[in-house]
Amino acid sequence: MTAGRLLTAADLAATCLFAIEGAIVARYADLDVFGILVIGFVSALVGGIIRDVLIGYTPPASLRSAIYPLTAFVGAGAVIALDQFVERVPVALLQFTDAAGLALFAVVGATKAVDFKINGFVATLLGAVSAVGGGVVRDLLLNVVPGILRQDIYAVAALAGAAVTVLALRWRMPRAAAMSIGLAVCFLLRIVSVWQGWHLPRL
Amino acid sequence: MTAGRLLTAADLAATCLFAIEGAIVARYADLDVFGILVIGFVSALVGGIIRDVLIGYTPPASLRSAIYPLTAFVGAGAVIALDQFVERVPVALLQFTDAAGLALFAVVGATKAVDFKINGFVATLLGAVSAVGGGVVRDLLLNVVPGILRQDIYAVAALAGAAVTVLALRWRMPRAAAMSIGLAVCFLLRIVSVWQGWHLPRL
Amino acid sequence: MTAGRLLTAADLAATCLFAIEGAIVARYADLDVFGILVIGFVSALVGGIIRDVLIGYTPPASLRSAIYPLTAFVGAGAVIALDQFVERVPVALLQFTDAAGLALFAVVGATKAVDFKINGFVATLLGAVSAVGGGVVRDLLLNVVPGILRQDIYAVAALAGAAVTVLALRWRMPRAAAMSIGLAVCFLLRIVSVWQGWHLPRL
Repeated sequence: MTAGRLLTAADLAATCLFAIEGAIVARYADLDVFGILVIGFVSALVGGIIRDVLIGYTPPASLRSAIYPLTAFVGAGAVIALDQFVERVPVALLQFTDAAGLALFAVVGATKAVDFKINGFVATLLGAVSAVGGGVVRDLLLNVVPGILRQDIYAVAALAGAAVTVLALRWRMPRAAAMSIGLAVCFLLRIVSVWQGWHLPRL
Repeated sequence: MTAGRLLTAADLAATCLFAIEGAIVARYADLDVFGILVIGFVSALVGGIIRDVLIGYTPPASLRSAIYPLTAFVGAGAVIALDQFVERVPVALLQFTDAAGLALFAVVGATKAVDFKINGFVATLLGAVSAVGGGVVRDLLLNVVPGILRQDIYAVAALAGAAVTVLALRWRMPRAAAMSIGLAVCFLLRIVSVWQGWHLPRL
Repeated sequence: MTAGRLLTAADLAATCLFAIEGAIVARYADLDVFGILVIGFVSALVGGIIRDVLIGYTPPASLRSAIYPLTAFVGAGAVIALDQFVERVPVALLQFTDAAGLALFAVVGATKAVDFKINGFVATLLGAVSAVGGGVVRDLLLNVVPGILRQDIYAVAALAGAAVTVLALRWRMPRAAAMSIGLAVCFLLRIVSVWQGWHLPRL
């Protein structure tokens, strides 16, 4: 398997995971099964769609074939089909895999922005938007203030991973190395902050 | 009148209708007259705008001349001007015409996506987005969970009409026939589901 | 200083101001410091981003270099750093400078749309979207109905300034004169309506 195919496989896995997580959140809102599918779809795909629209890459990558939407629907559909088992999934497993998905979306998003000649600071922001945009729009649809504005080292971990990747690419580090370092920074920062109960200060 | 002009006329009629409906919903929120106009405008135009931005057709069709925005403002303005008569409009008439508008937006949206070489599955999704996107953003602005996520065979009817149109076009059916079948499927599914009180299951 | 550099300087000043105002609003929501930065950023930049995406100018102007995002972060960061002094800022000063920022964003936005050959009526709408779009998305993120739909001559002042600018440009008035008249109309209409307590009618 080449590096490119490995990356695509990881991206699809993260898409499926984010759809699963979105659908799990949606189960607690008063929605019908269609609404749960939509929330899963939005959670998985909208972050990358916003990034692609902003860099001018339309149609967005995830809408250029059926594979990303189908992957999102499979993930959300699995939550509906396996409804009775969902509550038995350990929270720690979800947090662990979510941190991996967050890191992947942030690093891939930032790298894509750099490929499109976007300024490094903006590329870092777009990496974070790729990673957290779906969750923000999910929260808007569920009529709650987006969680990332209120608590946790979550978007900040995405920003950190994206920033490290952008800097490493600027320093001419090989692409696979730059992305690996960014992934590690985002993933570890997120996991340690959950483990240690870190939060950002408030006024 | 050619088929093209007939379609444009129907599209403008549906735009006006969606603006009227949006403004009627907005009357029950605590808005001023400007707010009611904005909600009418958003309800009528934002679904198509989102579709056009996603397929890369910018400026969106409805912003390339004044005719679509003006039509939306006329519809919403009529609700304000005729405020005292609005409550006498029979609900059944609104549901009937709304089902027609829904079908038209879904089928036209899906057809346009196919014209832009979008994958059939994604074109179906974009047809539904064209039809329901305005209502979703209206609900976000009014600070309620979008109705389509909670109840009714509404977005599903749009998806069904869009899917049938996409399949018929793929099977090389003449354009007018493909669109007519899609319109009929969406319209009938919506009308029958209202009449029979069909809902999607919940978990 | 040339007219172009003066305009850019004014645009950056308005960006910083809108970020400050957004962050001040965000202080009253239950957010962490990251959330306050995001709200400041959104308030300052999203209106222009929506306009640029709609006219097909991607990446949007404010994401083509680091200067606009950095300016927004400096404004929002200043609110966080000077938290204890924020409540002593006179409301009248904020309203006065806000009216200036509103006028600038509306007139610059409408002028840019005209430059992109957008129809005059739509260019007026896009000018207003440039000016109020950031505040609307801020309100959505804070889970309240956007203030511009409910009260005050605010978006209407933006529309008036944008409309006057578009008409003056169509009448071949020199660019600086057309923009100056639009700025004056928007600014004065906003200031007088605050001073006189003008509101739009309700149904």
